[in-house]
Amino acid sequence: MKAVPRTTIITIGDEILIGQITDTNSGYMAAELNKIGIAVQEMCSISDNRSEILDTLQRVTSSENPSLVLITGGLGPTNDDITKKVLAEFTGAKGMHVHEPSLEMVRNITQRRGMLMNELNRNQALVPDSCTVLLNTCGTAPGMWFEYGNAMIVSMPGVPFEMQAMMPEVLQRLQKHYNLPPVYHRSIKTFGIGEAVLAETIAAWENELPPHIKLAYLPNPLTGVCLRLSVYDTDVNTAAEVSREIERLQAILGKAVYGEGADTLESVVGMLLKEKGATLATAESCTGGKIASMITSVPGSSAYFKGSIIAYDNAVKTVLLGVHSATLAQYGAVSLQVVEQMALGACNRMHTDYAVATSGIAGPAGGTPEKPVGTVCIAIATPHGVKSQTFQFTNDRMRNIDRSAAHALNMLRLELLK
Amino acid sequence: MKAVPRTTIITIGDEILIGQITDTNSGYMAAELNKIGIAVQEMCSISDNRSEILDTLQRVTSSENPSLVLITGGLGPTNDDITKKVLAEFTGAKGMHVHEPSLEMVRNITQRRGMLMNELNRNQALVPDSCTVLLNTCGTAPGMWFEYGNAMIVSMPGVPFEMQAMMPEVLQRLQKHYNLPPVYHRSIKTFGIGEAVLAETIAAWENELPPHIKLAYLPNPLTGVCLRLSVYDTDVNTAAEVSREIERLQAILGKAVYGEGADTLESVVGMLLKEKGATLATAESCTGGKIASMITSVPGSSAYFKGSIIAYDNAVKTVLLGVHSATLAQYGAVSLQVVEQMALGACNRMHTDYAVATSGIAGPAGGTPEKPVGTVCIAIATPHGVKSQTFQFTNDRMRNIDRSAAHALNMLRLELLK
Repeated sequence: MKAVPRTTIITIGDEILIGQITDTNSGYMAAELNKIGIAVQEMCSISDNRSEILDTLQRVTSSENPSLVLITGGLGPTNDDITKKVLAEFTGAKGMHVHEPSLEMVRNITQRRGMLMNELNRNQALVPDSCTVLLNTCGTAPGMWFEYGNAMIVSMPGVPFEMQAMMPEVLQRLQKHYNLPPVYHRSIKTFGIGEAVLAETIAAWENELPPHIKLAYLPNPLTGVCLRLSVYDTDVNTAAEVSREIERLQAILGKAVYGEGADTLESVVGMLLKEKGATLATAESCTGGKIASMITSVPGSSAYFKGSIIAYDNAVKTVLLGVHSATLAQYGAVSLQVVEQMALGACNRMHTDYAVATSGIAGPAGGTPEKPVGTVCIAIATPHGVKSQTFQFTNDRMRNIDRSAAHALNMLRLELLK
Repeated sequence: MKAVPRTTIITIGDEILIGQITDTNSGYMAAELNKIGIAVQEMCSISDNRSEILDTLQRVTSSENPSLVLITGGLGPTNDDITKKVLAEFTGAKGMHVHEPSLEMVRNITQRRGMLMNELNRNQALVPDSCTVLLNTCGTAPGMWFEYGNAMIVSMPGVPFEMQAMMPEVLQRLQKHYNLPPVYHRSIKTFGIGEAVLAETIAAWENELPPHIKLAYLPNPLTGVCLRLSVYDTDVNTAAEVSREIERLQAILGKAVYGEGADTLESVVGMLLKEKGATLATAESCTGGKIASMITSVPGSSAYFKGSIIAYDNAVKTVLLGVHSATLAQYGAVSLQVVEQMALGACNRMHTDYAVATSGIAGPAGGTPEKPVGTVCIAIATPHGVKSQTFQFTNDRMRNIDRSAAHALNMLRLELLK
């Protein structure tokens, strides 16, 4: 087995260094590398500048020990994108050649986008002869894999989804190259319990966890806390052993656990609806379509999702959802009474078994002393009646919308579990 | 005037290196530094490890030229937070002493949080005698300002809002210390022209650009290409000069330019609707609420956005939007005929001046040889009639939804400009 390399992630682009965009690629790559047992020692953002790139490459590959460098950015077709040229220079490439499968990709993509392929596009398929090409299946800039002395340099496009589509191949190659033992992970998704309380709740279980099973808390303000169990020295018993621990964990946390791995609140809700053969509609005011958008992000959601009425205007609430004008006048649009009528109206108008409705003050304006910004009412209509609840969120519009949507989906999930 | 320092931002924390949290501090500090004329050459994230921190400090301050280092993180009260100790060692501090105003802050804050002040808290007010203290007005870890040879090292807390509250004092001190002219940036947002073709289109203009005005292409697959003009040696003529270049650029690109700076397609559409005193509704099938969600992400959108009917189910298209069953049967749900009726139906049912409608095959399933996955029809209903267009996007569901929404907003924008 080869030694685990010292690992650096380099993101290249002036737009990062002036603070115009936040680098999310480094975190994504680091988390993915972690899953196969590679720890990142340094992340580094530098500009599209030849000597900065060369100096950094020199520095992070100069050790006698093996080093791994993952790079994103600077592979675009324009003059300010120089990563490929500099990597060719650094790795002593004799020249560049056209990589036919990549040229085919460039041709397809420019065609599909209804654009003409020009010289700049064509040049994207040029690659240094010192690399193995990683085909970009989502864009025009190919990835490059350089083995250079005891350093491994992997260059990927800076567009996040293009990089993300390329990572599985990169991980597979790294696993093979460094002969890494298989790592075993399972993740449990929870919603509705804060990290500190969650840690307290499962403290006794955590203390009894065998030392070779590592536990990580991965909190996300929107989707809840994910608990990841990892085993880095797997054997034939690993899967069964981790399964047992997860069963114990689920027994402690109950319905706060909504899924595993890639599950999301919207995918779990979809699965539960399918199991019941039930249908869903939404009636959204403050969330403005966010819930419908999350539900329909799930492939196959047309099997259970019929549609939504987004009633931003009160007239839409009365005419299309059948909310009574008297209720609006008496309780205001942001009230449990109105949101319950919205949910029932959505069920009736779209002939569904379930409906989710929201009405609230997302902000920044529109708050009152009684109903400050962040007040959100959510109702769930079910075949057995309507449930509703008022939440008090933050001062931030986008956070209020996102959290309302997440809580609405979670309330629906809990009803579907009954 | 002193020379511009070579500037590095260092963020310290294991949680960044495992991809658990995204470092947003670096971008914030870089943008703030830019405003006072300091360009960042490198951003760097390393772990809470003595030798990693020392090596990095050594490296970034080793030049004979002046260097500036901004550091966040590793100032917490627990044992894994070692930044202060390492900085004391690096700058040759003779010892640590209690900074009374900081101790007062620690006392107040622990009290306010209903906690007792323990030894760990008290130690937070200890500072190396080699630094000037920057009072933390929002938290317990003081900031530190070190002048060390020709290097300037500024250490701030990693909690974003604590760092942000400290930045004004840091900027003021830096401005005074380096006495620098401001940097001038302006960004132009374009939609609908790929980066390569855009580069060709403006090549002649770009070649004539005065060398002190720097041009950067910042492409985003969803929001189009942003063109940024920067001047790093500004004088009284800079603003006028850049304005002239932007006017020339706009003359070349015409309506492909949708805005500047922080403008988005949804904010620009909102502005145009407000100017006209016009209202908007959406009727979405394949976009499933994404367009409504984008429109309502803009504060104040209730002034022009009335609502949306998300018609995932064909019955919702006929009953709520008034699409003719015969049209659905003859042309299919994904057709210009249906999407035009959807747009008109949204205008009628919600009494708006404009409506956007979408119907398409987002995928991954549902494609046919005539209408493969990625086929999307978009219609815009206006007071002067309906416009519609068919697009062919990709195989990826989320990308198809996002791009449909962006193109729909852009089509609406072009109609509003007429």
